[in-house]
Amino acid sequence: MATILLKARLALELPAINQALDALLQTLPAPVRPAASHTVVSGGKRLRPLLTVLAARLFGCQDKRVYTLGCTLEMLHAATLMHDDVIDSAATRRGKPACHTVFGTTETILAGDALLSEANACVASFGDPRLCAVFSRATADTCAGEILELHAMHNTGLTQEEYASIIKGKTACLIRSACEMGAIFAGAPEAGVEALKTFGENIGMAFQMVDDALDCAPEEATGKPTGGDLREGKLTPPLQMYRNALDAASRASFDKAFEQGTFTQADVDAICAAVRERGYDAKTREAAEGYLSLARTALDAVPDAKERGILLQMADYVRDRKK
Amino acid sequence: MATILLKARLALELPAINQALDALLQTLPAPVRPAASHTVVSGGKRLRPLLTVLAARLFGCQDKRVYTLGCTLEMLHAATLMHDDVIDSAATRRGKPACHTVFGTTETILAGDALLSEANACVASFGDPRLCAVFSRATADTCAGEILELHAMHNTGLTQEEYASIIKGKTACLIRSACEMGAIFAGAPEAGVEALKTFGENIGMAFQMVDDALDCAPEEATGKPTGGDLREGKLTPPLQMYRNALDAASRASFDKAFEQGTFTQADVDAICAAVRERGYDAKTREAAEGYLSLARTALDAVPDAKERGILLQMADYVRDRKK
Repeated sequence: MATILLKARLALELPAINQALDALLQTLPAPVRPAASHTVVSGGKRLRPLLTVLAARLFGCQDKRVYTLGCTLEMLHAATLMHDDVIDSAATRRGKPACHTVFGTTETILAGDALLSEANACVASFGDPRLCAVFSRATADTCAGEILELHAMHNTGLTQEEYASIIKGKTACLIRSACEMGAIFAGAPEAGVEALKTFGENIGMAFQMVDDALDCAPEEATGKPTGGDLREGKLTPPLQMYRNALDAASRASFDKAFEQGTFTQADVDAICAAVRERGYDAKTREAAEGYLSLARTALDAVPDAKERGILLQMADYVRDRKK
Repeated sequence: MATILLKARLALELPAINQALDALLQTLPAPVRPAASHTVVSGGKRLRPLLTVLAARLFGCQDKRVYTLGCTLEMLHAATLMHDDVIDSAATRRGKPACHTVFGTTETILAGDALLSEANACVASFGDPRLCAVFSRATADTCAGEILELHAMHNTGLTQEEYASIIKGKTACLIRSACEMGAIFAGAPEAGVEALKTFGENIGMAFQMVDDALDCAPEEATGKPTGGDLREGKLTPPLQMYRNALDAASRASFDKAFEQGTFTQADVDAICAAVRERGYDAKTREAAEGYLSLARTALDAVPDAKERGILLQMADYVRDRKK
């Protein structure tokens, strides 16, 4: 397996990551802890905190506080998921009931606010203005990405540049910041911080594109309902390729249903099956490979520690992941 | 007038404060600017930014960036109002339609998130970890105060200590931070920062208590519907005094309606009239005077600049304000 070192290291670091996350959850006001835990504990592969830890270790930092630092971005991520749940009125999240369906809208909004503000306070407690700047920029960019995405929904005229701006904001900037914060915390030289930043941003772009490819996969394979993006009116790369290849009449009919959000479940299943048959999901992964190549190249400039090999495997993991 | 210097100085500083606020609003993602502006522009006396400016000037700082710094807390305040609007499903705010009724729930949640995250990024851009720590603590404490308040609603067993924790979180910590950030930005000595922090926190506690007294005043006087706290199930000091003086039978009936939120408009009007007749609103102002006295004493330790006199007038303003 091309990702065996990565998986072994994740298994090794996971207990300390989860312990740091639990400790951070205890800093939240007691009434919102259940709602916050529901979202934080229930999911995520903890790739963001792992990236912070790997980035710091790469530059020789052994300070255990890096687990806490890495978890601040996991909290920010959970906060955005909670506000998204309210906004989307989604019934489920990662196969479990969405937070607002269990705890209500009020608790979900407030628990999200509490997660974000305690994460922010935690970053500030490190006393390094560069960490504060990176974290606050990650927060603002994530928020801006989600706003852009919402305003681009049901828009068949979305350009590739607009799509790139959206995924950079909603996904890549957080992964970039996870890598950057680890390098800064480790006291890496400026060129090292830049390298990790470039690595993280490109890994993040690729991660989201593969996510968009996986959205067209059968539910049996991923555990997530097929075609969520199509139903929500997100013109991701595989859907854009599908649309662009349609003849004029079929495209007009697709556009009407896409813009009005009127696809039936049968439409969604048929379109996703066609996406797979015509290889648009595979082509999306190929496009993501461009970003992964930039990510790998960025690591030419970092120390040849064992973490460098693991970060290179992260690129393979992102390319090959099946769910 | 005991507050003539304060009012003249507010009038003098207001253009620069509003200009800084406008510039900050321009940093938000374009799609959420209208919703954010609706809340930020429509209201507020700008006392928080004014306090930051006065605190900095008191210690001899003439740097114009203090206007921007002061406005970050106004943005945080607006963000909390927006999320509150969604949570309360309030129809109006400061006499105008609430943000979510004009722009919808999604825009209101996201604009609040954007305001908070851009304010945070702006504070980080000052490069001083102490400012980041104060701002992030203000955010987390405000959030915790609101959570406490929501969980204490319709609870007739609320203690004075619990009430104090709630208002410290939801109001005083933000005003404290406005003063503290001004002093830190000015490079004030540690004792000066502490003095401004104590001043701000106590001004904030008193401000909220007077607000709670004003909630029982007739709408003609304040422009706000009478008895909002009673309807929402908030056991503020004047309502607590009213309840404590009831005989056992009347109290049981009050408690039932308070806990179940079933007061009619006639009940609310009658109870608020009784609060005024029995002087519980005046007694609440007297209790607030204890905090104001602590605020004034804290200023013994600061330079005898003209801003010191204006800050002392702020205490009079808080005590005497009629709306």
